[in-house]
Amino acid sequence: MRLARFSKDDTPRYAFVQTDEADGNDYLVVLDGYPLAGQVSPTGERIPLDADGVRLLSPVIPSKVYGLAKNYEAHAQYMYEQGQSTVEHAPEDMVIFMKPSTSVIGPDDPIVYPPCSHDMNFEPEVAVVIGRIAKNVPVERAMDYVLGFTCVNDVTLRDLQQGDPMWTRAKGFDTSCPLGPWLVTKDEFDWRDAAISFTLNGEVVEKASGTTANLIHDIPSQIAFISSFSTLLPGDVILTGTPDASGSLVPGDEAVVHVEGIGDLRNVVVRG
Amino acid sequence: MRLARFSKDDTPRYAFVQTDEADGNDYLVVLDGYPLAGQVSPTGERIPLDADGVRLLSPVIPSKVYGLAKNYEAHAQYMYEQGQSTVEHAPEDMVIFMKPSTSVIGPDDPIVYPPCSHDMNFEPEVAVVIGRIAKNVPVERAMDYVLGFTCVNDVTLRDLQQGDPMWTRAKGFDTSCPLGPWLVTKDEFDWRDAAISFTLNGEVVEKASGTTANLIHDIPSQIAFISSFSTLLPGDVILTGTPDASGSLVPGDEAVVHVEGIGDLRNVVVRG
Repeated sequence: MRLARFSKDDTPRYAFVQTDEADGNDYLVVLDGYPLAGQVSPTGERIPLDADGVRLLSPVIPSKVYGLAKNYEAHAQYMYEQGQSTVEHAPEDMVIFMKPSTSVIGPDDPIVYPPCSHDMNFEPEVAVVIGRIAKNVPVERAMDYVLGFTCVNDVTLRDLQQGDPMWTRAKGFDTSCPLGPWLVTKDEFDWRDAAISFTLNGEVVEKASGTTANLIHDIPSQIAFISSFSTLLPGDVILTGTPDASGSLVPGDEAVVHVEGIGDLRNVVVRG
Repeated sequence: MRLARFSKDDTPRYAFVQTDEADGNDYLVVLDGYPLAGQVSPTGERIPLDADGVRLLSPVIPSKVYGLAKNYEAHAQYMYEQGQSTVEHAPEDMVIFMKPSTSVIGPDDPIVYPPCSHDMNFEPEVAVVIGRIAKNVPVERAMDYVLGFTCVNDVTLRDLQQGDPMWTRAKGFDTSCPLGPWLVTKDEFDWRDAAISFTLNGEVVEKASGTTANLIHDIPSQIAFISSFSTLLPGDVILTGTPDASGSLVPGDEAVVHVEGIGDLRNVVVRG
């Protein structure tokens, strides 16, 4: 099931996104209720996804966003080759960073290039959306706490990562966390082997591609580790890592993160 | 004005804390409305602060908490002497870290010592509470965005700070951010020279004391810098830095942060 948050005439609501078998088009099947608080039911209203005034929003508003640094060997090597890291391989232990809720934007929202940086980078990833309060969750039960998955662009100010040890500016600036276009519930998503790719101005960036099959610390391990010290709330998000190379974004760029089984998250960069 | 969040019979409400001139006791003057959204008015209800069932809560529930690392020269030297830092002096630029909203607890709530650490430390500080949405705020107008100030204990797992570069576990674990006992509005607080002290099991820890007069980056500069990359929301909190030495906490310890002009924030450590 694809679950979207959208606005039409400025009121944010939730909807399932369904493809009509007759005409092949996508429709928003509007819901009553809040999906993170339990049951929802269709209102009976059905809106074409491409109707005038329909705008998809970030599928959730997380209370917090955690992310994993260097969670693919290819990305750790890329960072080493770029001189961004003094070690060639990924760290053995998970390295977790945070992005604040104010960094989250939705599909088609602008990524605002902050004046403090001269090297903004894209990082396409799969994001986990938590569905239930999670504390001290064992690995083998971790997936019980997941609602679904969405695409994320973990936008990073590469030039500020060295001088800003906590990456608070580098990864936490406003608009640095585009999420969307919707979440796909876990029953319909192959999180063990989902292909990730990135398109810049219509051209696939081959070296930025990968699959979650190559994650160093898999998704259940991430949930178990983070929940061992921090309570995860419904709607909280974990960025699972970017698979390989990154690259620069400049104002005017169109950045599209594609995750197989989810869809496209598209954002354009504007000067701040 | 002292503004408290409290519960009685499990319903969280806001109140002004006023001392009765006749009997010298503190009372909660209960308020209608949400102080961060504008005007409030007294309900007419007045409850003794020490009445049965009254429990003070964290004065705000921040969407995010930012903190400054090594923002007093004495603390930078302490960290150097402890072998926690390779540089003797404080960094020239502000170093900002984050604590998640789930780390926040109130006065008298237990600080839970997580099993992943063997060296939990206290850090008494003054915390700024934001009152209005703040983005790209100039230094000279920064104080317009402040609602008030409260006490904070920036509890830190010292042994995890080195291996955990982003301090996500070390400073972000559940219960690591006790706030309270109430906030004092900015008009009644001398934020330029407020004395901070710390009491462990009834004994003042002399080397942990200081005053905000010795802040390297003052409070308006902190607000201006953080708001240059991240939108601060009403209720968001900035931990301004701990003035000097820190020290260990063990289960059973009673930790009291005292800030002149605010009061005492008391918490007891329990084993997690």
